[in-house]
Amino acid sequence: MRASRFFISTLKDAPSDAEIVSHQLMMRAGMIKRLGSGIYTYMPMGLRVIRKVEAIIRDEMNKAAGIELLMPLVQPAELWQETGRWTKMGDELMRVKDRHGREYAIQPTSEEVITDVVRTEIKSYRQLPLNFYHIQTKFRDERRPRFGLMRGREFTMKDAYSFDRDLAGMQASYKVMFDAYTRIFTRFGLKFRAVAADNGAIGGSGSHEFHVIAHTGEDALVYCPTSDYAANMEAAEALPPAGERPAAAQALTKTATPDTVKCETVAALLGIDLAQTVKTIALTVETTGKDEKVTKQHFMLLLRGDHELNDIKVGKVAGLAGHRFSTEAEILEVYGTIPGYLGPIGTRAPVTVVADRTVAHMSDFVCGANDAGFHYTGANWGRDVAEPAIVADLRNVVAGDASPDGQGALAIERGIEVGHVFQLGTAYSESMKATFLDENGKPAPLQMGCYGIGVTRILGAAIEQNFDDKGIIWPASIAPFEVVLCPMGMDRSELVKEETEKLYAALQGAGVDVIVDDRGLRPGAMFADWELIGVPHRIVIGERGLKEGKLEYQGRRDAEATGVAPDAIVAFIQGQMAQ
Amino acid sequence: MRASRFFISTLKDAPSDAEIVSHQLMMRAGMIKRLGSGIYTYMPMGLRVIRKVEAIIRDEMNKAAGIELLMPLVQPAELWQETGRWTKMGDELMRVKDRHGREYAIQPTSEEVITDVVRTEIKSYRQLPLNFYHIQTKFRDERRPRFGLMRGREFTMKDAYSFDRDLAGMQASYKVMFDAYTRIFTRFGLKFRAVAADNGAIGGSGSHEFHVIAHTGEDALVYCPTSDYAANMEAAEALPPAGERPAAAQALTKTATPDTVKCETVAALLGIDLAQTVKTIALTVETTGKDEKVTKQHFMLLLRGDHELNDIKVGKVAGLAGHRFSTEAEILEVYGTIPGYLGPIGTRAPVTVVADRTVAHMSDFVCGANDAGFHYTGANWGRDVAEPAIVADLRNVVAGDASPDGQGALAIERGIEVGHVFQLGTAYSESMKATFLDENGKPAPLQMGCYGIGVTRILGAAIEQNFDDKGIIWPASIAPFEVVLCPMGMDRSELVKEETEKLYAALQGAGVDVIVDDRGLRPGAMFADWELIGVPHRIVIGERGLKEGKLEYQGRRDAEATGVAPDAIVAFIQGQMAQ
Repeated sequence: MRASRFFISTLKDAPSDAEIVSHQLMMRAGMIKRLGSGIYTYMPMGLRVIRKVEAIIRDEMNKAAGIELLMPLVQPAELWQETGRWTKMGDELMRVKDRHGREYAIQPTSEEVITDVVRTEIKSYRQLPLNFYHIQTKFRDERRPRFGLMRGREFTMKDAYSFDRDLAGMQASYKVMFDAYTRIFTRFGLKFRAVAADNGAIGGSGSHEFHVIAHTGEDALVYCPTSDYAANMEAAEALPPAGERPAAAQALTKTATPDTVKCETVAALLGIDLAQTVKTIALTVETTGKDEKVTKQHFMLLLRGDHELNDIKVGKVAGLAGHRFSTEAEILEVYGTIPGYLGPIGTRAPVTVVADRTVAHMSDFVCGANDAGFHYTGANWGRDVAEPAIVADLRNVVAGDASPDGQGALAIERGIEVGHVFQLGTAYSESMKATFLDENGKPAPLQMGCYGIGVTRILGAAIEQNFDDKGIIWPASIAPFEVVLCPMGMDRSELVKEETEKLYAALQGAGVDVIVDDRGLRPGAMFADWELIGVPHRIVIGERGLKEGKLEYQGRRDAEATGVAPDAIVAFIQGQMAQ
Repeated sequence: MRASRFFISTLKDAPSDAEIVSHQLMMRAGMIKRLGSGIYTYMPMGLRVIRKVEAIIRDEMNKAAGIELLMPLVQPAELWQETGRWTKMGDELMRVKDRHGREYAIQPTSEEVITDVVRTEIKSYRQLPLNFYHIQTKFRDERRPRFGLMRGREFTMKDAYSFDRDLAGMQASYKVMFDAYTRIFTRFGLKFRAVAADNGAIGGSGSHEFHVIAHTGEDALVYCPTSDYAANMEAAEALPPAGERPAAAQALTKTATPDTVKCETVAALLGIDLAQTVKTIALTVETTGKDEKVTKQHFMLLLRGDHELNDIKVGKVAGLAGHRFSTEAEILEVYGTIPGYLGPIGTRAPVTVVADRTVAHMSDFVCGANDAGFHYTGANWGRDVAEPAIVADLRNVVAGDASPDGQGALAIERGIEVGHVFQLGTAYSESMKATFLDENGKPAPLQMGCYGIGVTRILGAAIEQNFDDKGIIWPASIAPFEVVLCPMGMDRSELVKEETEKLYAALQGAGVDVIVDDRGLRPGAMFADWELIGVPHRIVIGERGLKEGKLEYQGRRDAEATGVAPDAIVAFIQGQMAQ
């Protein structure tokens, strides 16, 4: 490509609504252009990256026996009503009516359509397994679109759907996709991590997220540096503390703690470690009986003062599905005290105490005394209060926790979710009556898996991981161009012009994706553009250098340029690219 | 590709709603699957054709200095309101509201968005010319979607937009696109014709349509076999007849023609040639004055009995913009007679007579006598009635008419419109204030052109041109596969299996897009599938043949197979493909 025949549009400053680095840099590098809230035109420079991302995905999907098709954007409401998602998806689903008043969804994903395709096409187990995918525009009407391509409304996604005759087959298809994703993200040249995710009803290891590692990531990833264990924060298990619970050493003492409702301030007031305190969280679960009467059940959740509640885990405790925080009025009514002074000892009414595993292992702890202005110190299970009714994993893990696989201690890093593989089971095939005839000629529901990659989101995530104060640093496999040639004074020097053209042809001949900057800019402006755009390899062709028999090579992460002889440059570049 | 890893789904019969051959064959060959009215899933076999069509378009667009980007599907209403198309497009424009009640269009084309991109990006004439294109999903809410991909609602289109500093530049960009289109359709391997089209306000040769030639085409194409002249029926000019008008030879005679209101029946009754009759068409033009009073003007259009009215041409006659047919009541009121007996001679009120060029050249003609049940014969201009107030080209040309370039006689064939190039001028740039600074630093509106190709429509058009009673006959460049290998009894014969694998590898190595049918079907069913799907080259590998030292090659249009030695087959196939 010649820059003069391409469209390059860089900005000194990012628009004020670009809050994060990747959004700012994509706007400044002219990769995207905002059309509306969460809606972007992919400019020529950005589209090249998208196409490279798509090509890698397509190649690995095909190698993994994925079969590409293309499902429509505009999908009849009737299909979405069959699975109930027409209602369940709420405002996020973009709905549209045609001239005859018929309703349609603009696809956010395509489970319904692919299941509809398959239920009419698949008759026998002999046709299975199958894995269909497409790379298609999606729309989700996010309440608050932001961060450029990271949380847009219109975006591109690769979504794949596997169909199998039984659970084992589905899990095998899932494994094939997991491995394909691993190859895909490896080829992107990004640091990534696959983590086990919670997948609700199915449980187990039925779902994994693929995250690009970045300090700015929205999600906390939990992993064990000395084993394969990895999960997202929702799914990472906090094991019970090792060993026996320490014996009680202190006497139970009611201590005045006026205006001290948080564990942090209680610990400071008493001069103790925060890890010696217990915080009490009051939850309420409402159930509606057959007579439509609402019954409320109240739960007291106990968490160590320095730990965080994990709402997903709480929801899995028997009786706690659909829980909510109790209101202040409810707390006053049930416990006779105000929030901040609740505790398991001497409650006014019988209450179900649900203790986190760590709390159940504590002795001589500090907790609210159910009396405004007072806490207990030296509290102990069994002695001062009955053992908790329920002990469960209720908290987020923290760095240093034991890994659930017993192979070391957990570490935590931040990630950006860019892929998700999911064992769907028969949820869609049952609601849509997608069956096949098994070996005995009996109809059985198809076992499904679904597998997504946020194509356009990859761009944002790659940048969040790879940038400096000059701009983007693309991995070579998804860079808009692999190499940029920067001739100095091409219009003045015949030598420079000739050498540039020779090199351009040689690199193209070697299959390198090269752009020559023939715009005639001053060196400073030219270099700044390409550093902002993030092309990984730059070659400067100058008359002085040529007369000394060298070109100047500089990798995007290099502090300084390296002189390379013109004859050796193609091999040199190939060597750099192979690294 | 191996058929066992692909998805092949053929049908014996087409669904009853498939009215035309291409729709029937695409459904039967498993290329598309209906999701809703005018909405199709592109199945794996169909998607391969679409991708090949797109690749050819992209390659030629890039060679013609087109720069690819990707504009969103969901486009803010405000942009469409700027050009007035939000209203003008009516029900065909699919509209959607987001969760905040903001309105959007699902793009049918992208003039507004590209003009918005360019008005913020282009500051100076130095940045011009530019030509942006994208290949993107479109939606048009057709009143009556039908014919499969030929008149669907969701479809794929390549749309390009050129921007120039002046008319000459725009016309040069237009020429570049015209030539690129010619190369694109040539590479598709289709018989096609570019015809001049009417483009309303701009006139001249500012618009061409590209048609795939097919008997079943919706459009009539006019061309001169002995010159370059070609136009669509709307735009093809009918020249005035050559020579002087013949002198009057008959006397004007009022002749009884009871219940004979059509020229055909008048000619039969009188025993004369239809070409001797003149039909009269009453038109009314309503104009609303400043006082909101509606004034009606009435026109009498004269056409030779065997000619057809061309409404586009009529609309261009001074005073006839916005014309409509007069109602029966208006005819009775103005002319004092009933339709079928109108004529230019002896009208009750003064009326503007607009004669087609051919009619103005007639003598001794037959026309209505403005008296129910009577026609005049032997009518002559000048003698019996004043020369017509207006003489204009009002009719469709017919085969044999003189070519407007004076180089021969016109012929007519049918075509399917698949591309359109259009000189837009400044219509969009003026309404959207898309200006640039010219050499004198003065703002000037951008000169635009737009250029579309109906990507998915190409599939339908290619089939309408290329099919037989067995199925589709794809041109090799856009066939889903170039070559199919049909092994006979691969599971029984080690020799067949070995030779098939060898040949498969050899063809792949030679860059041939080959599929091996390893499904284990009987020969009849296997051959029928590939003839239906329309793969252009087939090689049968059978044990008997191999023992005789040959494979059986058959081109999709060949009546019989040809024996080819295994060693020679790759070169043979390459030879066939080069034809």
